[in-house]
Amino acid sequence: MEYDLKIDAATTSFSSCADRFVKGGYKPNYEFERQLEMLAAVDGITGVALDFPSQYDDPATLTKQLDKVGLQLGMTEIDMYSTAKWRYGSLSAADDGLRAEAIELVKRGIDAAIEAQGFDVQLWLGQDGYEYPFQSNLDDSWARLYEAIEEVVAYRPEMKISIEYKIKEPRNRCYISTVGKALYICERTGRVNAGITLDVGHSLMALENPAESAVLSMQRDRLFHLHMNDNYRDWDHDMIPGSVNLWETVELFYWLEKMGFDGWYGIDIYPYREDGTAALTRTVRSMYKFREVAQRLLETGIEKLQAESDAIGVMDLLIEEILQ
Amino acid sequence: MEYDLKIDAATTSFSSCADRFVKGGYKPNYEFERQLEMLAAVDGITGVALDFPSQYDDPATLTKQLDKVGLQLGMTEIDMYSTAKWRYGSLSAADDGLRAEAIELVKRGIDAAIEAQGFDVQLWLGQDGYEYPFQSNLDDSWARLYEAIEEVVAYRPEMKISIEYKIKEPRNRCYISTVGKALYICERTGRVNAGITLDVGHSLMALENPAESAVLSMQRDRLFHLHMNDNYRDWDHDMIPGSVNLWETVELFYWLEKMGFDGWYGIDIYPYREDGTAALTRTVRSMYKFREVAQRLLETGIEKLQAESDAIGVMDLLIEEILQ
Amino acid sequence: MEYDLKIDAATTSFSSCADRFVKGGYKPNYEFERQLEMLAAVDGITGVALDFPSQYDDPATLTKQLDKVGLQLGMTEIDMYSTAKWRYGSLSAADDGLRAEAIELVKRGIDAAIEAQGFDVQLWLGQDGYEYPFQSNLDDSWARLYEAIEEVVAYRPEMKISIEYKIKEPRNRCYISTVGKALYICERTGRVNAGITLDVGHSLMALENPAESAVLSMQRDRLFHLHMNDNYRDWDHDMIPGSVNLWETVELFYWLEKMGFDGWYGIDIYPYREDGTAALTRTVRSMYKFREVAQRLLETGIEKLQAESDAIGVMDLLIEEILQ
Amino acid sequence: MEYDLKIDAATTSFSSCADRFVKGGYKPNYEFERQLEMLAAVDGITGVALDFPSQYDDPATLTKQLDKVGLQLGMTEIDMYSTAKWRYGSLSAADDGLRAEAIELVKRGIDAAIEAQGFDVQLWLGQDGYEYPFQSNLDDSWARLYEAIEEVVAYRPEMKISIEYKIKEPRNRCYISTVGKALYICERTGRVNAGITLDVGHSLMALENPAESAVLSMQRDRLFHLHMNDNYRDWDHDMIPGSVNLWETVELFYWLEKMGFDGWYGIDIYPYREDGTAALTRTVRSMYKFREVAQRLLETGIEKLQAESDAIGVMDLLIEEILQ
Repeated sequence: MEYDLKIDAATTSFSSCADRFVKGGYKPNYEFERQLEMLAAVDGITGVALDFPSQYDDPATLTKQLDKVGLQLGMTEIDMYSTAKWRYGSLSAADDGLRAEAIELVKRGIDAAIEAQGFDVQLWLGQDGYEYPFQSNLDDSWARLYEAIEEVVAYRPEMKISIEYKIKEPRNRCYISTVGKALYICERTGRVNAGITLDVGHSLMALENPAESAVLSMQRDRLFHLHMNDNYRDWDHDMIPGSVNLWETVELFYWLEKMGFDGWYGIDIYPYREDGTAALTRTVRSMYKFREVAQRLLETGIEKLQAESDAIGVMDLLIEEILQ
Repeated sequence: MEYDLKIDAATTSFSSCADRFVKGGYKPNYEFERQLEMLAAVDGITGVALDFPSQYDDPATLTKQLDKVGLQLGMTEIDMYSTAKWRYGSLSAADDGLRAEAIELVKRGIDAAIEAQGFDVQLWLGQDGYEYPFQSNLDDSWARLYEAIEEVVAYRPEMKISIEYKIKEPRNRCYISTVGKALYICERTGRVNAGITLDVGHSLMALENPAESAVLSMQRDRLFHLHMNDNYRDWDHDMIPGSVNLWETVELFYWLEKMGFDGWYGIDIYPYREDGTAALTRTVRSMYKFREVAQRLLETGIEKLQAESDAIGVMDLLIEEILQ
Repeated sequence: MEYDLKIDAATTSFSSCADRFVKGGYKPNYEFERQLEMLAAVDGITGVALDFPSQYDDPATLTKQLDKVGLQLGMTEIDMYSTAKWRYGSLSAADDGLRAEAIELVKRGIDAAIEAQGFDVQLWLGQDGYEYPFQSNLDDSWARLYEAIEEVVAYRPEMKISIEYKIKEPRNRCYISTVGKALYICERTGRVNAGITLDVGHSLMALENPAESAVLSMQRDRLFHLHMNDNYRDWDHDMIPGSVNLWETVELFYWLEKMGFDGWYGIDIYPYREDGTAALTRTVRSMYKFREVAQRLLETGIEKLQAESDAIGVMDLLIEEILQ
Repeated sequence: MEYDLKIDAATTSFSSCADRFVKGGYKPNYEFERQLEMLAAVDGITGVALDFPSQYDDPATLTKQLDKVGLQLGMTEIDMYSTAKWRYGSLSAADDGLRAEAIELVKRGIDAAIEAQGFDVQLWLGQDGYEYPFQSNLDDSWARLYEAIEEVVAYRPEMKISIEYKIKEPRNRCYISTVGKALYICERTGRVNAGITLDVGHSLMALENPAESAVLSMQRDRLFHLHMNDNYRDWDHDMIPGSVNLWETVELFYWLEKMGFDGWYGIDIYPYREDGTAALTRTVRSMYKFREVAQRLLETGIEKLQAESDAIGVMDLLIEEILQ
């Protein structure tokens, strides 16, 4: 089998996968270098998504570590969420000092990612939001948030900045919650290096059709990165892709193929109770399978059915051609 | 009591309120002119929201009818949803002739609204969407949709065009589903007469906090019209405002007051089993009550609590000052 | 192809499929006898589900009509929902006269169904519920509801009474909302003719896994009837089975096969914008396909994987064996 | 102020409140005895809810610790969820040895609770469920689960066994998910010491009206314990009661008062970012406030309005009498 997709993954699958009830985690937590080795050993995974500065701080050191196992740096995510310090927000924080620190951290992360030849820098602002009605000064918070994003996007235009929207968790309400808000922000910046990470599960839990969110983003050349996973449209369960929503996952691959997506196909799963290597392997194989199915569908003349909104005709195709 | 809010309402409360199971409706359906009279008789309602061309086609006739009862024309909604003809979409329709007809209808509606001195023209594109995975050519549909909106927004810049987003119903998935997508479209047009109708229930069913959606829209001077109602965040039940989500409804009024909203406070309820006059009266009274509470909260120093993300402090205020 | 499943369907597919916005419906509404003919003409449909007394009142007349087209009477549903009269409930109504009338109607329906050799009598109590907090006297309503069910279940023990639970619509909250509540009621009656109609879409919108709800019901010999359809877990869209939730639909068939379900496989779809015959045909074909896939899965040794909670192993099977 | 409600609370408010992203927690984690002191210091809290055996194993020791601070033992929850060992279930586990161990642990917990004069023993079976379609042998799992519950309920009939249902988390799907399923189980056992813990948030996230779930349980004398908290109907956010769903929280208190609930009013909140003492204090005060409001509503003649399903009349009461 030829692996021609750019697939990166976080190291989560080789971590303890703790949750609020099982604080010790469901599984052993491997050392960072071992995690990289284990990741590299999964057929089809060619890149890694890492948190800055919690997983790498020095690009030179990282480059050596990656070279050793033969992985590329895909995504660099700025970690402004994993410690209590950011509990009331990062780029939107009301505290001027803290917000300045956040902006500075993003810039340092951009520098590091450029030096380490990473593909993009991701802003997932999970702590920027609120829990309770009336808790947030919505006007000020959004103003601060937008300005900060504008600033970091402008910092080094040669580096792509990917906004990963999410509607909730860890905050009960996160500011950048939907593909629409993410696109609105990107458009307002007027910059081509402002784009989107489409996390399939985030899209589903925001009640979106991920394929549609991808299309909207690609129409503006703003789809930079995918985070593949799945859930029951209710929460970010980070399940294996296509395990729940098969048709919509295939539909996503159909549109990625059709519109020529050339960014990274990231894997963002949390196999709490599953073996990490097995879960990643299954994910990679499913992704290739879904692409193959999507490619076949592209040859079926399905567009004619769509032009007539022929739902039955489309379903005839899906059930008869894809299920065996 | 002094009624100083601009409140308009649809005539739904004086219609049969049929649903798919009770096709004959739960209540009598009054004639149009009687509906206007009944609406005008509700204390505090000063305007009406009407569908073009199904409820009015000739502005001159309408003006006389409205003058007779003493109502202003608030919203003019383009009716491209209530007949089977539009079942596969209007401004996004794949059929070129149908789409051209839709665009033409919007333009005629704009002309009529201007002549009848209406406040804004609303695009609620409830039939523009799809039901099934793979049913829609997402790329083409969105391209057509955006272009059509751009065209009608440009048609007569002196008239506000309000996009009312809704995530579903009657289509299982509607294209313009969230405040983010609506804002994205408005920003892309680059025109100041492109704005938003914030239907509270639509916002809730898209899992938004309506206050936040209002703030985002007002930050760009794009909040033109409200549709007040309520639901369980699950469906567009069109219930009486504040009957389910009290705090978030008050929070919306807080931000409308604080940021000086000066558009129309539309009422969009469906009192299937309730008396129309009683339901509208209750709605108007609740809205004034919520505004009064919001005004009091503005005087409490709540902003300091918000600057510290002090959820407990905020709740102390709400529970101790507002509940009696 | 051999059709050995007992499949009945409502006549909805040949009705106007009106909703609250398109009151005239999306399609033509056929006469009753024509609807029966059209239904009988769909390969694989052998029975019909009808409302008493709105679709049939006289069993003798119905028997002739059914004989003419070669259909059996599957389900008889008591229609206490389609007119405004029942807007505040039927078996739970606070009005004593109305409630007595409802009970009497159910009994007459049971008599009619027995005479017409129907399979079961269904109670779908869509109007028994409420919209607003505090609107319902929850204690009295539930007491009345349970007593009435107990009475009609005891009326003629030779006839199965199928309770079709639904969490909402047309009421915003319906009393008998989940499989658990339906089972609780059945168990309390202590009668074997008290059972359940599992509507897949109702189960999904109550956030259930329909297969699990079927298993629970079958463990107590209380699964009498299925209503096949699909949705996005959000609302009773009544879509074609397996069009959204493929895996869980196949899982349902797996358990029906494994535990030997021998009731009726009802079809309850609302093809608002689709041709009725095409939609029903697609549904029947999909159901047979899903059963065939389920039967193959039964031969794979999947039980061993389940005993080890081996989610990856199960997924290997699904993706590699079922997708082609 | 007189504190006459029996209120117990878990120690969560004085723990680190870690989540999967902030593994180190948002706050300091206090020692057990300090947690008890801090809890006892909150005005109105008279009891504690503890996990067996992770928080107490020896009843004699616990009794001394509680006497020292002046707290009673309310709930004893059997901890079969906080370590990886139970990741595939406890009372439903396919592994015979593990399941036997779970049953034995529950029995030991019952013995301990009786000796420590606790009010009830709670089964919250958070790890009994599954993530993926086809992962669970639904028939065997439910059979094992029910048998185990039957056994432990029969073990010492003098001790109340409270089943706390929850629809998900930590498993994506938990078996005992709704009030209906919990009631069904209780009824099947035929035992009066089988009852329910109604966690308001669990009820909301299962799309229930908590008041209705309480009424159903009280009608069968099976409501033993409350877990007060709140959320957005989407997830178990464990927020402060009444902070989101005010009306439904008050409605719950209305029915508890009206039907004379005499069990424990447990507090189950997770103040991730709030001070524990402040959050608990706010919670206690809100609960007394809601009860007071409920008591006033009981005097208004609201029952007459309910008998007529008069939603507007009810709302007049709520908005005019309760908001100030």
